[in-house]
Amino acid sequence: MNGGEHLLWRISTPDDLRKLKPADLVKVSAELRQYIIDVVSNNPGHLGASLGVVELTVALHYVFNTPYDKIIWDVGHQAYGHKILTGRKEKFLTNRKYKGISGFPKMSESEYDAFGTGHSSTSISAALGMAVASKRKGEKRNVVAVIGDGAMTAGLAFEGLNNAGIAKSDIIVILNDNNIAIDPNVGALKEYLLDIATSKAYNRFRDRIWNMLGKFGRIGPNARVLAKQVQAGFKSTILDRSNLFEGMNFRYFGPIDGHDILHLIQILEDLKRIPGPKLLHCLTVKGKGFKKAEENQTAYHAPGRFDKNTGIIIRSSAKDSLVTYQEIFGRTILELAKNNDKIAGITPAMTTGSSLCIMMKEIPDRVYDVGIAEQHAVTFSAGLATQGMIPYCNIYSSFIQRAYDQVIHDVALQKLKVIFCIDRGGLVGSDGATHHGFFDLAFMRSIPNIIVSAPMDGPELRNLLYTAQLEKITGPFSIRYPRGNCMISDWQKPFFEIETGTARLISSGRDIAVLSIGHPGNFVVEAGRILAEEGISVTHYDMRFLAPLDTRALHTVFREFGKIITVEDGILKGGFGSAVIEFMSDNGYKAEVKRLGIPDYFVEQGTQQELIRECGFDPESIAQTIREMVMKRVPEHKLKA
Amino acid sequence: MNGGEHLLWRISTPDDLRKLKPADLVKVSAELRQYIIDVVSNNPGHLGASLGVVELTVALHYVFNTPYDKIIWDVGHQAYGHKILTGRKEKFLTNRKYKGISGFPKMSESEYDAFGTGHSSTSISAALGMAVASKRKGEKRNVVAVIGDGAMTAGLAFEGLNNAGIAKSDIIVILNDNNIAIDPNVGALKEYLLDIATSKAYNRFRDRIWNMLGKFGRIGPNARVLAKQVQAGFKSTILDRSNLFEGMNFRYFGPIDGHDILHLIQILEDLKRIPGPKLLHCLTVKGKGFKKAEENQTAYHAPGRFDKNTGIIIRSSAKDSLVTYQEIFGRTILELAKNNDKIAGITPAMTTGSSLCIMMKEIPDRVYDVGIAEQHAVTFSAGLATQGMIPYCNIYSSFIQRAYDQVIHDVALQKLKVIFCIDRGGLVGSDGATHHGFFDLAFMRSIPNIIVSAPMDGPELRNLLYTAQLEKITGPFSIRYPRGNCMISDWQKPFFEIETGTARLISSGRDIAVLSIGHPGNFVVEAGRILAEEGISVTHYDMRFLAPLDTRALHTVFREFGKIITVEDGILKGGFGSAVIEFMSDNGYKAEVKRLGIPDYFVEQGTQQELIRECGFDPESIAQTIREMVMKRVPEHKLKA
Repeated sequence: MNGGEHLLWRISTPDDLRKLKPADLVKVSAELRQYIIDVVSNNPGHLGASLGVVELTVALHYVFNTPYDKIIWDVGHQAYGHKILTGRKEKFLTNRKYKGISGFPKMSESEYDAFGTGHSSTSISAALGMAVASKRKGEKRNVVAVIGDGAMTAGLAFEGLNNAGIAKSDIIVILNDNNIAIDPNVGALKEYLLDIATSKAYNRFRDRIWNMLGKFGRIGPNARVLAKQVQAGFKSTILDRSNLFEGMNFRYFGPIDGHDILHLIQILEDLKRIPGPKLLHCLTVKGKGFKKAEENQTAYHAPGRFDKNTGIIIRSSAKDSLVTYQEIFGRTILELAKNNDKIAGITPAMTTGSSLCIMMKEIPDRVYDVGIAEQHAVTFSAGLATQGMIPYCNIYSSFIQRAYDQVIHDVALQKLKVIFCIDRGGLVGSDGATHHGFFDLAFMRSIPNIIVSAPMDGPELRNLLYTAQLEKITGPFSIRYPRGNCMISDWQKPFFEIETGTARLISSGRDIAVLSIGHPGNFVVEAGRILAEEGISVTHYDMRFLAPLDTRALHTVFREFGKIITVEDGILKGGFGSAVIEFMSDNGYKAEVKRLGIPDYFVEQGTQQELIRECGFDPESIAQTIREMVMKRVPEHKLKA
Repeated sequence: MNGGEHLLWRISTPDDLRKLKPADLVKVSAELRQYIIDVVSNNPGHLGASLGVVELTVALHYVFNTPYDKIIWDVGHQAYGHKILTGRKEKFLTNRKYKGISGFPKMSESEYDAFGTGHSSTSISAALGMAVASKRKGEKRNVVAVIGDGAMTAGLAFEGLNNAGIAKSDIIVILNDNNIAIDPNVGALKEYLLDIATSKAYNRFRDRIWNMLGKFGRIGPNARVLAKQVQAGFKSTILDRSNLFEGMNFRYFGPIDGHDILHLIQILEDLKRIPGPKLLHCLTVKGKGFKKAEENQTAYHAPGRFDKNTGIIIRSSAKDSLVTYQEIFGRTILELAKNNDKIAGITPAMTTGSSLCIMMKEIPDRVYDVGIAEQHAVTFSAGLATQGMIPYCNIYSSFIQRAYDQVIHDVALQKLKVIFCIDRGGLVGSDGATHHGFFDLAFMRSIPNIIVSAPMDGPELRNLLYTAQLEKITGPFSIRYPRGNCMISDWQKPFFEIETGTARLISSGRDIAVLSIGHPGNFVVEAGRILAEEGISVTHYDMRFLAPLDTRALHTVFREFGKIITVEDGILKGGFGSAVIEFMSDNGYKAEVKRLGIPDYFVEQGTQQELIRECGFDPESIAQTIREMVMKRVPEHKLKA
């Protein structure tokens, strides 16, 4: 051991790591863990997952020849240690910041990032692709997928296992079993893993042998000898065949302690030499080595800023006084559920993030956390709806992409009353490109039979949630809102119905009309304030519904205005603005329409403010667009009809 | 037994069935099977799957109190027998026809159709939803999901199992194991099922016991007695614990013969009384009872018309002389793959339907049938692409909805060169609402970084397939085409590159411009012919690319024409026409644009021709739209800008 010497600073790339002696790796792990704590305490990110795989990270880069060998980190927020060991120690200070490094592995960022993984459960499929391609090319390349027990519940992971099991490719799947997703993991698989981790199956079997052999007392003293030998001989059989993963044609190893780095290295060295698909079951502790994080794993999944010594989370008091859309969702659905016993809440592993935990605490038997399984969340909701329950199926925008077919085929086509609460719509901030909710406005509005709405503020969210469950609503209803504060603190007023397909007039002006959907309406209000001082007056409609559109309001606007701006926090191609110009075109209007929203590229991470500015629909940009349109004369030739 | 009497005609609903004695059910099954053969031989549909579940269908309706009890038929093309027994015996003659009954269960068609199931693997999730809701309401309702071994490989089925395994709901999953999807089933699960169906696991275990006990010869004559008893005692343990489904907390029963109706009835009666999630493993033969269909299960999955006595498939010679898009895809990818060893073909269980079978026959080691697993197909392709292979990932339009997230997150975001071959785009015909490919044009064009194309005919498909693999194409490339004939027989000409984002001028005229994407361009050509005789001349562009659009061509068109029609076989909301008017609006043009395509509802089944006419973009409808636009004066007030 190197005593006081700081080893981590000598490691620029895994090559440096591989020069160390195995005995040094304990120290490297400790330093790596501390560095993650130091940085993340000050620059918020995903703490728990990365702390849990420190030893695994060091061991993998020590044993495997990265970047030639490929490591795919499923749900890449466990990859901080990996980033630090692969040339990004200093850059890690910019983790998740605007123009900084991504909080997830990203192929364009480093050759060590074998595959970008913001969404869960992709690693086995990607690893299999790499292994198959390498084999075809005659390369001797190791491919390792590191996947959590939470991510393993998603269908995609199962599809990958099922295919890998016959492909005879040399892939290693490391099951990072910490028995938790963001919230405690759920499902039969979780129970199963616990079962094999604790050898329950084997113990049950052993007990049976003893019982049976006990009955053969007459055989004499040999019975015990026999029993021992039978037992030893069968242990491997039982553990083999009793294993789900062996059933999928994977060789199963484990469970082992994922924090015993020397043992890990030994086993990984062995696994390198065994051909075919292998699964190593590692038991780890989320938040390992940081007391508070171990004790409260959900809170320390992504704790925000915290004191790196005490672990106490630092709350910025200003922000906390505002109410979030999430809180309004959580408290409102509880309120509604208390009055309507048909209401259920469904979440794919986002109980806390969605605030469904509020209802779960009071009415646990009507909240269903189905695990990381968006497809199932939707079809399960459809099943509930057939029997007259009213499921509020809460899924983040970027994750409901996984359930697009189920929304179409199982819900919309059958006109089932499932209420989609699409959280994290628009720019989510520091999670970045993989997590922004860009596409839902466009892809939801294309589907027949669904009411597609987006509230501009907390009270509107509240009243849409109320409206959706009314008996007059007989089909699917989608309510989409962003992450974060809803601008209004005084929200808990009596419910009122919002008539489907009606817009809300926010301001009347003469120079231009602005149509907004959802939260960005607030930026329009702010822009209006700026412009009022300049003598420009704006008509502003909060459209509220993307489908059906408020055609009365639109006719009014297009009759009265030749200049119109649309504002949305979704992709412009096919989105809300596109719906407005479809209306214009279908009805023979010929206004000048400028559409503001998400441009045609994948926006990276940053604060929501930074990103909204980049996309050009922050208040000042809106104001500037209005100024330009109001001032400008339209060139003659473009008016030709 | 009732001898010559025809029992099936006495059955209007399952109530009638339930009045019969068990012994009569053999006869009912035989009659039901014959009726399916009689009807489907003349009115094409899915033959094999429904023949395979005749006994199961009769047994389920006999044992369970439908429609109060719920049966969910996964991939509903196995549900013909179900439809016939539930009040649709005569209507079955209109199966899959325009205005007739659907070829799949459909909630709006019958109260016996508990859930609409055109897409696979939804049944467990839906059943769980129903069971949970029933339990909450205090009802004693049985819920049965019937799912094939092929459908079981999809992630959604696994998600459903995983959740059901802990929900303690009384659902029965019947695994209809015929060891085939449309093409032979693949994957580790399939091997596993074969393993347990043939008791391989148990046999291996038994052999070990015998071997070991052989070594204890010294114990004397008791050894054999002991061995037998040990064996008997362990059998249940082994079969229990070795079972994948038991691992998922399901009680596993079987495997049993799915054609032994009396045994089926006994077991189903027993299962009704056992609480909790249960899985019954039924071995069936696809095409059972019809020799040809048993012998060639892929061809008789949906054989078209056939002779009901000999089974010989009747080919309509006229149709067969034309080349299909599918055949051009299959033969072209083979040709390309022979010249470029990086090329691979990927299909989620549609080897024959996609025509990838052509390449599979000659280059089997570069074709990957991953089973019913669209998500995995895409992410696996992404993995291949990271290592420099060029995957042609062929997925039907309505099924790639299942992989939307993977297209966005694993491919587009990382700019990986995956070539999406989206088959069955547009109106597919008699498969109907669940299978039409309506949405892909809209949802693909919203995604940054992807080239989105759709050929108008066979040669264009061929050359797009060629172009996509050129080195200059470095990112994702999507090529979308419909089911059926590509109009041209003389297609096998030398390859030429189609420059990305360039349209093709089909005809030049003065009265109006028509912009089409994909196959419907042919209808525009036909419309042009009709109108030429009336003295109306049409400029027609086959746009070929939806992203990037050919802006040069569009500028030309919008400068020269005030009247423009767009034609597409995709949903109008957000689709191709929407892209064109986005261009118009963004560039300050103010033409009158009429968009033709799929309207805002789920179109049902019929021939492609019937449905295209219904949607209004058949040649005559296009011609009529042109006439109206060319003749009409635009009302004054609508020109206001």
